[in-house]
Amino acid sequence: MSGPRLIGVDWGTSNLRVMRIAEGGAVLDSRSDPRGAGGLSRDQFRPVLEEVAGDWLSNGLPVIVGGMAGARGRWREMAYAPCPAGIQELARAVERPDDAAFVALIPGVAAYRDGRLHDVMRGEETQVMGLDAPSDAVVVAPGTHSKWIETQAGRIVGFRTFMTGELFGAIRKGTILGADMGEPGVEDDAFAAGVGRAFADPAITAVLFSVRIDGLAGRLTAGAAADYLSGLLIGAEVAAQSAMNDRPVVLIGAEALCHRYAAALAMGGFQDVRTADGAAATARGLWRIHEAASR
Amino acid sequence: MSGPRLIGVDWGTSNLRVMRIAEGGAVLDSRSDPRGAGGLSRDQFRPVLEEVAGDWLSNGLPVIVGGMAGARGRWREMAYAPCPAGIQELARAVERPDDAAFVALIPGVAAYRDGRLHDVMRGEETQVMGLDAPSDAVVVAPGTHSKWIETQAGRIVGFRTFMTGELFGAIRKGTILGADMGEPGVEDDAFAAGVGRAFADPAITAVLFSVRIDGLAGRLTAGAAADYLSGLLIGAEVAAQSAMNDRPVVLIGAEALCHRYAAALAMGGFQDVRTADGAAATARGLWRIHEAASR
Repeated sequence: MSGPRLIGVDWGTSNLRVMRIAEGGAVLDSRSDPRGAGGLSRDQFRPVLEEVAGDWLSNGLPVIVGGMAGARGRWREMAYAPCPAGIQELARAVERPDDAAFVALIPGVAAYRDGRLHDVMRGEETQVMGLDAPSDAVVVAPGTHSKWIETQAGRIVGFRTFMTGELFGAIRKGTILGADMGEPGVEDDAFAAGVGRAFADPAITAVLFSVRIDGLAGRLTAGAAADYLSGLLIGAEVAAQSAMNDRPVVLIGAEALCHRYAAALAMGGFQDVRTADGAAATARGLWRIHEAASR
Repeated sequence: MSGPRLIGVDWGTSNLRVMRIAEGGAVLDSRSDPRGAGGLSRDQFRPVLEEVAGDWLSNGLPVIVGGMAGARGRWREMAYAPCPAGIQELARAVERPDDAAFVALIPGVAAYRDGRLHDVMRGEETQVMGLDAPSDAVVVAPGTHSKWIETQAGRIVGFRTFMTGELFGAIRKGTILGADMGEPGVEDDAFAAGVGRAFADPAITAVLFSVRIDGLAGRLTAGAAADYLSGLLIGAEVAAQSAMNDRPVVLIGAEALCHRYAAALAMGGFQDVRTADGAAATARGLWRIHEAASR
């Protein structure tokens, strides 16, 4: 059996995950820490990494880092690689922070439209590189900032961000709709009703008020309201992308969320939807970019 | 000169305004208090009203109350009057709370679609009754829950709520877009850019991310971001209602907000837009409903 060949780091905004990775990209073991990149200044990254995985680092293994460590004001600001971007483009663009020459940072990816910056990602590009997606696929990575990533022959050719997850949280916490609202994931029928409502009417900033109206009318219980709201927002997202429904979709993300997206995609006429293991894709993507960068 | 003939009360969710009103609906004097209906339980309404305006009440004048005092769980739950609703329908439906027979509460108004409750208002109906709007007009009352109210011969025949103001606040406070964001109302060009962007792309939950992208690209300063975000949300609202742009619009609400709506409506092809004084309309509406109820 092969031992660890690479230390892979997925440094998200609010979470850090460090993995020991074998040849080919399998995860041998991993550690998590709540010190996400969003809360760290430039000179805190190396000490945090050493605290979490100093024993692993002492073996002289190469270290590769994807995610938000390369964002502005973080470990080292990494320019976004422009679309189309694949393993070669990402590998060529890795850079090393001044205080840690043993670390390679992976850049994010930028989409342009009419010569203007149109969208950005940091972290999802590494996951996409770890997928073996069908050609001409759409990778959907739901979450705080949900990404729809178009791929061709393994390269990212375009993408779009929906603020679905963050809006869900802000609406639940900061508006009248959130009063007495529970957690989503319990009432599939309410979720489907929300998706259907969003499909029927694109004016989402008005349609959201139906959470309140349906509650007043006794058609929506407090226990089902979170699922209905989730359905409205995910439905608005799927409806906006429905022109892609003849293409294969690969969902990567938390299992319960992918389950809800799969239901909404089916309602939107998407025929070929599969779900991939996000953590495994990240590790494999880190391995593949490392391998290409080492050549 | 005529003296006070009516005590008119506009009891909003977060604010209370008590007016002494002359024959015809002119406001003689008024007092405001932060104890809105949203924070009061059933038995607190009468004491608060007496505390704010006990000296006025002692003269035996009739008292009429519009707004949220008739909402569920407040002073007395008032059923919504169904559309079409005008002065006569509202006047016929006034009711008196158990603990204050000298007070008449005005009901809200409900819109139905296919026999199902579709939307509700409490308070705006009184303002509309105080307007002398052209026939077949649309009254737009921007704010936390922005209302588009269709009128015919002074009656409310249909309406729709957009959560524009509340979403603006929740997005600014609860998402990454709000970081370092100032107040709106300073950068007209940024507002217009937001409106234009929302007109060009109906997928508002994706378009919102352009606040971040344009900031990253250096196209949007922190000082202009609030106006741009306001433009996106108001633009989404105006775009959704653009089929009404051949009808006269009467804007009622805060002056700075009406100014921004007027700009967005002009961009949306609305030709005939006038602005009315919201406080005067409320007082005149209270007077007219009182007068009709007294016959």
